[in-house]
Amino acid sequence: MSIVTAPANLQTPLETPLETPLETPLETASVVDNSLFLKTIVQQIRANDAYGTYRYWPDDLLLRPYILSKKERRAISVEGEVDPFTLARILAFYRAIATRIESETDQISQVVVDISHEGFGWALIFSGRLILVSKTLRDAHRFGFDSPETLSAEGEKLVSKGIDLAQRFPEVCDI
Amino acid sequence: MSIVTAPANLQTPLETPLETPLETPLETASVVDNSLFLKTIVQQIRANDAYGTYRYWPDDLLLRPYILSKKERRAISVEGEVDPFTLARILAFYRAIATRIESETDQISQVVVDISHEGFGWALIFSGRLILVSKTLRDAHRFGFDSPETLSAEGEKLVSKGIDLAQRFPEVCDI
Repeated sequence: MSIVTAPANLQTPLETPLETPLETPLETASVVDNSLFLKTIVQQIRANDAYGTYRYWPDDLLLRPYILSKKERRAISVEGEVDPFTLARILAFYRAIATRIESETDQISQVVVDISHEGFGWALIFSGRLILVSKTLRDAHRFGFDSPETLSAEGEKLVSKGIDLAQRFPEVCDI
Repeated sequence: MSIVTAPANLQTPLETPLETPLETPLETASVVDNSLFLKTIVQQIRANDAYGTYRYWPDDLLLRPYILSKKERRAISVEGEVDPFTLARILAFYRAIATRIESETDQISQVVVDISHEGFGWALIFSGRLILVSKTLRDAHRFGFDSPETLSAEGEKLVSKGIDLAQRFPEVCDI
């Protein structure tokens, strides 16, 4: 499922039923309201929405492509290039983490995502000379989370680790 | 000029004269012998030479594509993707720096080069959570140096800065 096909599904009835139909958008609404991290991802997506495509979309629908069941993940081929929508989702995820760390520590940070053609690579968030978040990526084509709660929890875990590091080594951030 | 076309030039007389013909290989031979950094780049190139293409090439010829005059640089288009040979040269340059830092500090390090389609990006060398080398790249298509001496000096400068950082913050490397 890609971000782009979703609006069509919203207006016309689904012809091929999804495992989790978009009509019942995973009850993410209340989760988004209660998660600062999910709100920050939504901000990232809207910030990059230069043509206003998502202007009238509810937040939970913007986050919908992040949620993939095990079966949905397996169905995605890991051959060839990672598609641009998935790449954009990965970037928005890590930029949201960077934004959350920035707002808590006042340290400006950079996000670098380096994915090879095989879907392997690195996601790094750094401030000065300190790496706040360092993740190796595997099968990036299948980037996704079981539920909005997992997405939020994974993000917040990386945020709090990053804040901890920034507070332990502020002199390395300031180089 | 690309690495691949060079062997042909070695065996047959040049039909179109280069600004700096390969017959006079910039007198790099003695420079290579005296520079640990240039020797390390050569090692990197030979280590990735799975098919033995460069087996009988002298070291100075392997380094030749790194040397570009201002005029040669300007002649390279910065439109479109950075070509794979240039990308390989950039990687070998930063991997050589990482290898030199490793051998001086006993800290294992990683190299991440992230270049966008426009030739902009980052080159990072890091060990644990410490970034030893952090360079923004611009016009990566034109990656090159005025002379073997400049190449060696630029590399050694980054090596010694990296060693200095690794020695100042060993606890950040060990995270």
